[in-house]
Amino acid sequence: MNRKLFATAILLMAFPFLSMAQNKRNGIKASPKRLFTIEDLIPGGSTYYQNSVPPSKYTAWWGDECLHLELDKVSIIDKKAYDGKTLFTLSDINDALGNQGTLSHLYSVSFPSERTEVLFSNYYNLFLVDWKEKKVVWSLPLDTAASATDFNEESRNLAFVKDNNLYVTNAEGKTSAVSTDGTLTLTYGESVHRDEFGISKGTFWSPDGSLLAFYRMDQSMVSAYPQVNISIPEATVRTGAESPSRAAQLDPDPYPMAGETSHKVSVGIYNVKTGKTIYLETGDPTDRYFTNIAWSPDAKTLYLIEVNRDQNHGHLDAYDAATGKLLGTLFEEHNSKYDEPLHPIEFLPWDSSRFIYQTRKDGYNHIYLYSLKGTQAKLECQLTKGAFEVISVTGFDKKNKTILYTSNEANPIGCAIYSVNMKGQRKLLSDKEGWHSPRLNANGTYLMDTWSAPEVARRYEVIATNGSLRHQYDDIQEPWGQFAVPEMKVGTIKAADGVTDLYYRLVLPTDFDPTKKYPAIVYVYGGPHAHNIDASRHWGVRGWDIWMAQNGYVMFCLDNRGSEHRGLDFEQATFRQLGVEEMKDQLKGVEFLKSLPYVDGDRLGVHGWSFGGFMTTSLMTTYPDVFKVGVAGGPVIDWKYYEVMYGERYMDTPQTNPEGYAKTSCLNKADQLKGRLLIIYGGNDPTCVPQHTLSFIRACIDAGTHPDLFTYPGDGHNMMGTDRVHLHEHISRYFDDFLK
Amino acid sequence: MNRKLFATAILLMAFPFLSMAQNKRNGIKASPKRLFTIEDLIPGGSTYYQNSVPPSKYTAWWGDECLHLELDKVSIIDKKAYDGKTLFTLSDINDALGNQGTLSHLYSVSFPSERTEVLFSNYYNLFLVDWKEKKVVWSLPLDTAASATDFNEESRNLAFVKDNNLYVTNAEGKTSAVSTDGTLTLTYGESVHRDEFGISKGTFWSPDGSLLAFYRMDQSMVSAYPQVNISIPEATVRTGAESPSRAAQLDPDPYPMAGETSHKVSVGIYNVKTGKTIYLETGDPTDRYFTNIAWSPDAKTLYLIEVNRDQNHGHLDAYDAATGKLLGTLFEEHNSKYDEPLHPIEFLPWDSSRFIYQTRKDGYNHIYLYSLKGTQAKLECQLTKGAFEVISVTGFDKKNKTILYTSNEANPIGCAIYSVNMKGQRKLLSDKEGWHSPRLNANGTYLMDTWSAPEVARRYEVIATNGSLRHQYDDIQEPWGQFAVPEMKVGTIKAADGVTDLYYRLVLPTDFDPTKKYPAIVYVYGGPHAHNIDASRHWGVRGWDIWMAQNGYVMFCLDNRGSEHRGLDFEQATFRQLGVEEMKDQLKGVEFLKSLPYVDGDRLGVHGWSFGGFMTTSLMTTYPDVFKVGVAGGPVIDWKYYEVMYGERYMDTPQTNPEGYAKTSCLNKADQLKGRLLIIYGGNDPTCVPQHTLSFIRACIDAGTHPDLFTYPGDGHNMMGTDRVHLHEHISRYFDDFLK
Repeated sequence: MNRKLFATAILLMAFPFLSMAQNKRNGIKASPKRLFTIEDLIPGGSTYYQNSVPPSKYTAWWGDECLHLELDKVSIIDKKAYDGKTLFTLSDINDALGNQGTLSHLYSVSFPSERTEVLFSNYYNLFLVDWKEKKVVWSLPLDTAASATDFNEESRNLAFVKDNNLYVTNAEGKTSAVSTDGTLTLTYGESVHRDEFGISKGTFWSPDGSLLAFYRMDQSMVSAYPQVNISIPEATVRTGAESPSRAAQLDPDPYPMAGETSHKVSVGIYNVKTGKTIYLETGDPTDRYFTNIAWSPDAKTLYLIEVNRDQNHGHLDAYDAATGKLLGTLFEEHNSKYDEPLHPIEFLPWDSSRFIYQTRKDGYNHIYLYSLKGTQAKLECQLTKGAFEVISVTGFDKKNKTILYTSNEANPIGCAIYSVNMKGQRKLLSDKEGWHSPRLNANGTYLMDTWSAPEVARRYEVIATNGSLRHQYDDIQEPWGQFAVPEMKVGTIKAADGVTDLYYRLVLPTDFDPTKKYPAIVYVYGGPHAHNIDASRHWGVRGWDIWMAQNGYVMFCLDNRGSEHRGLDFEQATFRQLGVEEMKDQLKGVEFLKSLPYVDGDRLGVHGWSFGGFMTTSLMTTYPDVFKVGVAGGPVIDWKYYEVMYGERYMDTPQTNPEGYAKTSCLNKADQLKGRLLIIYGGNDPTCVPQHTLSFIRACIDAGTHPDLFTYPGDGHNMMGTDRVHLHEHISRYFDDFLK
Repeated sequence: MNRKLFATAILLMAFPFLSMAQNKRNGIKASPKRLFTIEDLIPGGSTYYQNSVPPSKYTAWWGDECLHLELDKVSIIDKKAYDGKTLFTLSDINDALGNQGTLSHLYSVSFPSERTEVLFSNYYNLFLVDWKEKKVVWSLPLDTAASATDFNEESRNLAFVKDNNLYVTNAEGKTSAVSTDGTLTLTYGESVHRDEFGISKGTFWSPDGSLLAFYRMDQSMVSAYPQVNISIPEATVRTGAESPSRAAQLDPDPYPMAGETSHKVSVGIYNVKTGKTIYLETGDPTDRYFTNIAWSPDAKTLYLIEVNRDQNHGHLDAYDAATGKLLGTLFEEHNSKYDEPLHPIEFLPWDSSRFIYQTRKDGYNHIYLYSLKGTQAKLECQLTKGAFEVISVTGFDKKNKTILYTSNEANPIGCAIYSVNMKGQRKLLSDKEGWHSPRLNANGTYLMDTWSAPEVARRYEVIATNGSLRHQYDDIQEPWGQFAVPEMKVGTIKAADGVTDLYYRLVLPTDFDPTKKYPAIVYVYGGPHAHNIDASRHWGVRGWDIWMAQNGYVMFCLDNRGSEHRGLDFEQATFRQLGVEEMKDQLKGVEFLKSLPYVDGDRLGVHGWSFGGFMTTSLMTTYPDVFKVGVAGGPVIDWKYYEVMYGERYMDTPQTNPEGYAKTSCLNKADQLKGRLLIIYGGNDPTCVPQHTLSFIRACIDAGTHPDLFTYPGDGHNMMGTDRVHLHEHISRYFDDFLK
């Protein structure tokens, strides 16, 4: 269950593992005016992949060669011409496997070295096959009940979690238990701190794979939220001595709420050879966050950034990997609002005494170069600088000693690929337009750039990191080509502070008639670490916007202050009063909308999910005369019901910021509701627990106001698959009922 | 928490404890055309008692005198003239109490003897005061945390339950624990078997008060339904070692579902003098119902009717009250569908060797006279007979050796008062019209008859049980007199079987215009042990019907086969397939509705709660083209989620009647939903647990259909107080949105 709140709310992965089968075009020649069905536009729809997702190309790096992975063959992509030559086929692999197993496709194989060896798993085993010799070089059995598997290519050791305990299978196939006392509230090798602080996993191999750092999390002191499972399989229902029942069952989920007792995390290091585990000697882990774990290249030192519960102070600490003793603190960071380290340090591949670190200490996320002397770190220089943000560090070009990264330097809502050398000289490597996702080869010599732009569905380019080559390998056809796509506009308006530019996206109704008056719907997210408008395909528009535009609505979206990639001040404007400034910005958007001659200002709607559900509920109750209809999904209603890590970063605790919590609580505004407001929540939402929505419903009942309600029993924070289509039918129907 | 399902769903007590304060008329002279507000019509509304409930008179018997109890005085009701003379005042009582306590009103005092003694409690103590001598004759301290208190006037012993254990305070004020190991799943002295089989309490004093029979119920083997409490008081929220939390909390409720392991009940007898408890030697209590407990007049024998889990066989057993040994079985009852004994045997006050018993063995509930020889019971005669039902036995006229009872002999939808002598000769004592609720004095000489009829708001009559006197003491003014009350009609149509008469009630829109076409709403309950149409005030119309009629709807209600007071065949037509025949009858009602020239057959709605919520959901999904809009409240969705006692009586078990369960499950019809269906449930409903509604919502999502949903967090099976007003606003709005 993914507990990472807000990213998942708006970013739904559009890459199917097997899109090929769904991409077979039907033979009908479509008219250019074909209309969408909702199944075409919503992830989970039966024709979504066929009609809304540009088909993916699967690629992998093998040394300096870029490979095209297909169902039944792997070929070399010629860096100058389109077609490449076949390297091997699926039959070659299956011939090599013989009676050891079968592989069904080649989409997810990888190439750990420059030898003619391909690595893959077929669920039961991990195989390394020499395709030239047609033989299995090495294999490892896999536990089919394993999760969180983490393979180290260097040592060929494999870590995995099973029933809350951590195990390691070494290259010889011997499995050892790293822990044995795991329970639902004591986990080993799993992600911790609710995936905040950039944490997304719980195991960290040393470069050589001899040592495995891992998280241990004790949640026994955390209050469990009583989630309830209503779907008890009939097969388990029978009378008998043990009294099984079809009655709903409790599914308790440890959930520390803001200001309450939180979990305790420690970091262990397992030595594969000795089978021994040591723990970092951190002392009492109460109210401490251990984040951004990184290994020294020699595997002797483990680095992590510790953050205090207040989240206004971080320090980079070095621990002895052999003893667990603290070696020293390399540097500290302080921010009067909050400090949020998200990126582990990374050592330069060509100099193990220097590392880079990303921080927003000058107001924007930038790359800094440090040199190390023992446990002293010295800032050498700030490598990137300016009113833009480094979005991600892609890797290193060892030969030319440059760092590859992406940033929005060229366009605040774009993401292009750059290199920077040790003197801080930046070079644009990709097209400066659009949104780029590079994948670097191990040598650091080439990038495979997958990108899109408002008019570019998806393009694949091979780029030499030294800038000497940029070859368009493939340009995927726009799947919406056959449809009547509504007109979209992107621009900026001023925020409520009068100075900041905010980006908006406007989608006009299909068959737009400027002399008509249309109802308009604001789609809002509004929270940190997310954005809605960018320079990717169709400006990042949501399928539901298209659906509603086709149904006669003007669709509007505005990334208010607080959203991502616009710098620290932009984000921190919301501190200790989430929603307040965000709403002011959204009202600026409404002002703009109302200024459009074709918008009927008396028929405005608003919809958002998660933080956007909080925004929607807040807007409907704080400014009850603005919107006639709202649909809030999986909302935060009162930050006191939200979890410690995310909640306290932005809101501090209910004890230290009672005014902020009171001011932003929708419970205190339930009596102000005037318009029609539908609230929808996942019945087992582990992120915005049902208590949010249910408390608001209770408050409205007590206040005599009348929201509407729907739930998706058994679903979590987001609805997936066919539930997602149902959800958007439900949302759309509500606007049709009351706004149209 | 009252778990008795269905009665509470439609019968909301209209007698406030203190209606006086709310009955002060405001000075405004209302126009005859005044319209209702929803607050006037719905229980819980701010003006409901003032504008919809005929003010109550509080009365009590003192020997042959009928007393009028007022706030500050008690007077004798002259049986011939209207006004009576004051017997004593509140000051008299408080003077007598002196510093022992204070009494605030005289509405609920009683008169245990013909002495000048009045019995009352003031929350802290029970007092017996001689108003003539102005002194406290006797008093007993009360435990303010006690529940289920049961006072025996003869011995002045008091039984009560506290923290799941049973206690007795004797007349001298000494309290003894009858049990000490009570827990949430092991209760003493509380009602058992989920209030089925006529059970409504857990303690039974012997006539002389020397022995206390009581129920013990072990639910440790029963699956607990995971109810969740979302409202955690802020006061309990603080950080600390014990980690209190504002997170929702589990509130597990043992709930045996049909076909699953049920609870185990035993019957104990506590001897107040010896302090010893014996248990009836019943053997293993698994799957056995111990019902209808009754004492022999000499307190030597305890009678009960044991029913098997199949509920098709009952037997009246006699147990030795001193030893707990089974003395013998007096008689047995068998019914191929189900046997449902609801009335304990009652011994004739003038002959302790004879008792009466009510049973439906000839197809209608009638009174039978038995004589007792040792442990042999011999049927002497059937005292009442005919195609009508005895509704209740009121008591005995010792002098004339008659039994007082009510029945619907004169009118199938009425309830009048009769006497029957030992030869089976019946005599009508009350007005034959209307619905009568008699209260007999201890001597059996007089009745206080509180009654209403369609045109009679509430009337009080004193009736001599020998038929020599019938005096109208008071005739309460119709509180709707000042309002524009819509026209109501009651009549019969034929059931789907073509022969049975079914009663309907039609409410025409206020300001009815026969040339117009109106939308119509069917209000339905439809389950056993309940009816909607009777000969009481305004034909038993619901306030919400009036509200909707005022808003322009034709309101229709039909008591289908399966409902109460119409005989066993009428009720059992539904056996093993609840809803099937009931729906066929309701469709006959729809046919009738559509035949009315002023009903728009394309705008039909349906609403019901509990069994009526099941009927509504079933109708919307079984006959999807009939109703455009439905609102189902607290519904049963699948009988497999309903409890053992009620559920298995009508449906047998999922194991023995899989076809019946499958056929009646709304889960299997979720894909058929076409109209608009709003489902509403109490968030903590302990009767129709939330799993019903949530499973249906899940089934609809999976089937791609779109019901609507609302919940009342924290509420049980019915909404009370202001929540009930909110509920009816919500229901009404839904019909206004989609049916009007």
